[in-house]
Amino acid sequence: MGRGQPLQSDENSGPVTERGRRTRRKLLDAAKLEFGEKGFHDASISDITRRAEVALGTFYTYFESKDEIFRALVRDFSDGVKEAAAAGISASATALAIERDALAAFLSFAREHKEIYRIIDEAEFVDPASYRAHYENTAQRIFERLKAGGATGEFRDDITEADAWAVMGMNVFLGLRYAVWAKDDDAIEDVPERAMQILKRGITA
Amino acid sequence: MGRGQPLQSDENSGPVTERGRRTRRKLLDAAKLEFGEKGFHDASISDITRRAEVALGTFYTYFESKDEIFRALVRDFSDGVKEAAAAGISASATALAIERDALAAFLSFAREHKEIYRIIDEAEFVDPASYRAHYENTAQRIFERLKAGGATGEFRDDITEADAWAVMGMNVFLGLRYAVWAKDDDAIEDVPERAMQILKRGITA
Repeated sequence: MGRGQPLQSDENSGPVTERGRRTRRKLLDAAKLEFGEKGFHDASISDITRRAEVALGTFYTYFESKDEIFRALVRDFSDGVKEAAAAGISASATALAIERDALAAFLSFAREHKEIYRIIDEAEFVDPASYRAHYENTAQRIFERLKAGGATGEFRDDITEADAWAVMGMNVFLGLRYAVWAKDDDAIEDVPERAMQILKRGITA
Repeated sequence: MGRGQPLQSDENSGPVTERGRRTRRKLLDAAKLEFGEKGFHDASISDITRRAEVALGTFYTYFESKDEIFRALVRDFSDGVKEAAAAGISASATALAIERDALAAFLSFAREHKEIYRIIDEAEFVDPASYRAHYENTAQRIFERLKAGGATGEFRDDITEADAWAVMGMNVFLGLRYAVWAKDDDAIEDVPERAMQILKRGITA
């Protein structure tokens, strides 16, 4: 400990050195594997540091406890979902295409980080406030997108919060089925288009 | 133990006497409160029997372990969701009305049994096979309904499994928001109609 460490490890401002940021990232990536494989109760700080290939004492420069790195990991995943969606929709031409591309980006993210479901879901028990914040924040972002589509006349002008929770639910369960529980013969690449068709014209003939 | 007890307690066929069925029901209702409040790990068989007002030994006439009553409770909830939806749609006039009424019945069920989310979600960790079976079976039922609507020409004729998972996701997250996390000023009674509008014509203007 000591050399090249962050000047402080407050979880909001984070490490101030580039080396500190890399070490914190290594710990979070190791925690993702550890919590994802073992679940919160069986995971251990010593196994997280072993996976991260850092000294046990180094852990405490960044996080105070197993609870704290778990909370940080939930926030990290929540930010990852947000950033993946934002990157996915940067070139989307219409409000409908934004929803299709946001779902496609989420499915890619969930396929790359299959632990996300287990970890976010376990937060319901380990850290209920983070669990609820993740979904409330995600629904709020979707609500803003849908209202923006309403403002341009592409979406209905009476979009409600319920519409946003409905869209989020579609996306979460399509991710569960086609990213986490994917089968070999699934036409995964068709899924965002199918979901967009529901948003475009429902499921009626 | 002994008097009025079921002749056998195999979990598939269940108790054979009416008194046995009532006792098993009391244990499941008590387990719902116990697991719902404390979670699986902190719940205890002795507190379940205390809540059910039956002798501790009686528990083992019906269930072998805490794991077994938890699994039975997940199946019981899964059956409850299925039966509530079936009752809700018995008089529905159209395929769209079936989806609206099924959601309304699910929201009522979830408001009456708010523990359902916590218990089904904890099954992801305590009993992953039951967790997956619950959602796969529910999606399959929705898929059959949507295909039936396709066969009569009310829904599109190219309904896929992804459409069913999308509808299930909408319903699950509308239940999370408007049954479990309901706020005082929510217009909960409007939610099934809002969801049906999405299925009818999407969210486009």
